[in-house]
Amino acid sequence: MSSLLLTGIGSLVTNDPSHGGPLGELRDAALVIEGSVVSWVGSRRDAPAADSSLDLGGRAVIPGFVDSHAHLVFAGDRAEEFAARMTGQPYSAGGIRTTVAATRAAADEQLTANVARLVTEMRRQGTTTVEIKSGYGLTVADEARALAIASDFTDETTYLGAHVVPAEYADDPAGYVSLVTGPMLEQAARNAKWVDVFVERGAFDADQARAILRAGQAKGLQARVHANQLGEGPGVQVACEVGAAAADHCTFVSDADVDALASAGVVAGLLPAVEFSTRSPYPDARRLLDAGVTVALATDCNPGSGYSSSMPFCIALAVREMHMTPAEALWSATAGGATSLRRTDIGHLTPGARADLAVLDAPSHLHLAYRPAVPLITQTFIAGRPLS
Amino acid sequence: MSSLLLTGIGSLVTNDPSHGGPLGELRDAALVIEGSVVSWVGSRRDAPAADSSLDLGGRAVIPGFVDSHAHLVFAGDRAEEFAARMTGQPYSAGGIRTTVAATRAAADEQLTANVARLVTEMRRQGTTTVEIKSGYGLTVADEARALAIASDFTDETTYLGAHVVPAEYADDPAGYVSLVTGPMLEQAARNAKWVDVFVERGAFDADQARAILRAGQAKGLQARVHANQLGEGPGVQVACEVGAAAADHCTFVSDADVDALASAGVVAGLLPAVEFSTRSPYPDARRLLDAGVTVALATDCNPGSGYSSSMPFCIALAVREMHMTPAEALWSATAGGATSLRRTDIGHLTPGARADLAVLDAPSHLHLAYRPAVPLITQTFIAGRPLS
Ligand SMILES: [Zn+2]
Ligand SMILES: [Zn+2]
Repeated sequence: MSSLLLTGIGSLVTNDPSHGGPLGELRDAALVIEGSVVSWVGSRRDAPAADSSLDLGGRAVIPGFVDSHAHLVFAGDRAEEFAARMTGQPYSAGGIRTTVAATRAAADEQLTANVARLVTEMRRQGTTTVEIKSGYGLTVADEARALAIASDFTDETTYLGAHVVPAEYADDPAGYVSLVTGPMLEQAARNAKWVDVFVERGAFDADQARAILRAGQAKGLQARVHANQLGEGPGVQVACEVGAAAADHCTFVSDADVDALASAGVVAGLLPAVEFSTRSPYPDARRLLDAGVTVALATDCNPGSGYSSSMPFCIALAVREMHMTPAEALWSATAGGATSLRRTDIGHLTPGARADLAVLDAPSHLHLAYRPAVPLITQTFIAGRPLS
Repeated sequence: MSSLLLTGIGSLVTNDPSHGGPLGELRDAALVIEGSVVSWVGSRRDAPAADSSLDLGGRAVIPGFVDSHAHLVFAGDRAEEFAARMTGQPYSAGGIRTTVAATRAAADEQLTANVARLVTEMRRQGTTTVEIKSGYGLTVADEARALAIASDFTDETTYLGAHVVPAEYADDPAGYVSLVTGPMLEQAARNAKWVDVFVERGAFDADQARAILRAGQAKGLQARVHANQLGEGPGVQVACEVGAAAADHCTFVSDADVDALASAGVVAGLLPAVEFSTRSPYPDARRLLDAGVTVALATDCNPGSGYSSSMPFCIALAVREMHMTPAEALWSATAGGATSLRRTDIGHLTPGARADLAVLDAPSHLHLAYRPAVPLITQTFIAGRPLS
């Protein structure tokens, strides 16, 4: 097992509170990778010897982004629908069915190639862990296929048979819930860590959501929820009730929802690229943060409501539109995402952590928000290995 | 002179109205580059033979972006000022002086390296022509130095001695205007195509602007103006009066301003990345377009009010925030920029045009707005030559 010393790090974000400040930031720092983990961090002048070393010339290093919400297994795109929406047509969950039809019709290889393309795109932008959901198959075989494909790319696979009721069950939503909690779950559970439900008018209600999440939990899956995206509703409350790890979206929440998130310790996953691409109001991050809720930032990368794969863009939007500080935004895009996925080995750069990190062509992480949409990530390491 | 056939172009944006639609878009197209110019465009099946060929596998090709407004000759950054502004401190033109001090103190090599870094960053994002302004020197020698450096990177160099009155002339603005219109202009004119003034409360008023622009014009420079960024004012009117090519910003304009732009044929340069990074209201693009004003989109890349170098980001903002259609936004970022710079050889892909183009890892230009902040540009050609 060989060791690599990264030195000349102008600013190192560790997310380790023992180094002080919200991000445990070290200046003029160094970091040692041993095999797939971080074995040492500290001041450049104290750095131990290693088998090889790389001088980063003052660049900043941050923990790799943890994108805790993405829908990558699909075929087709919806660029025309996007363009129409920008001229005034509102986003509706029904558009999901367009992608379901294209996904069902696609060959395995086509779906795999599309996931590979998007995961590569994400990694080049500094993402080192991505959650991937099913949800565009909506048959037993197509959901199982989506999760088998997703599991080739990540451990964070999410069964989202309950994305929307497919057209063929339009007259029998209860029958669809039975399928989702029965034979579909049976197959899906082989390759899923998580179970998720889209709780929304036009998708699934509270009782359906409870049944689906509880069934998944009985099969050993952990719960996460699409909650309160398009309007107030029961999503957050159900998430808290079942002990979900995360309630994602939280665009329209009541005071009771905010209290519930805080006291249940459920992470609020904010997905501002969706609000950007649907021209919707942004979630009120400050209200959540000020109430003590843990916030994660994620892309929600999907062909319908927001097709950005860029975590730096989420950070820029969080700062500009949601009044998060740059430090809060970066924490939420790294440690916050890890918390949302119940992972303790990622989201921070401390000895023993997985060596997942991104090198910025910039002197500090502030540039992620200060230089919006500029591709600043020059190198990404995943489990100690540089990309390409 | 060798020829190169680009084939397998899923969508080719020519900006040639004879091909129909707002962008003269051709599907399943091909394009031939001969030396530094485009020699042929058309349907793939009609493509002539060439010395070599490259199949783009269905990717989209667009004219290279023409970024008609950028401030790249400077030292230092203002990331901390940005972070403070995001917590509520308003942008003021006075911050320019911070960069002036750093720029004056910098060695030539340092300034050149910074321009090179930013120009490379822009080219990788599809920009093939960039205007570069002086304006952080504000002494005879420092302005001349900035323009000499800029002229190594572009033909579109702009003398902006009238960016702000430097601290040492705070008590004698008239004396500074005499310097700008006298000895500073004398030196600057050697390496400048354009003369520009920041017309704004706290910068220069209408009489000063007229004097500066007229003096530049008398020396053979052409006029462009920073107008109406922070509030209503005389900038647009002065631009129209002196026959400037462009009035840039146009965030706060009166009906009379809009009429003047339309009837004088002065291009309105919109710089939405500045509004993003200063959390300001966006210009009303629809009002300008509906009145028949020609609109250009540009980055205004600078360390103070907006440090993005990304033209795709400007397009995404134009669509999301300014209600431009994706086609209008792309036209403004290419042909609009060319019009703003009074260039007829760029901004379109028609036989005889300079072979400046960008290849997108996407089937159509719509993805520039549909996939915000994703680095979609896989290759950039400038004057027929691929980047690196
Ligand atoms: Zn989602
Ligand atoms: Zn400017």
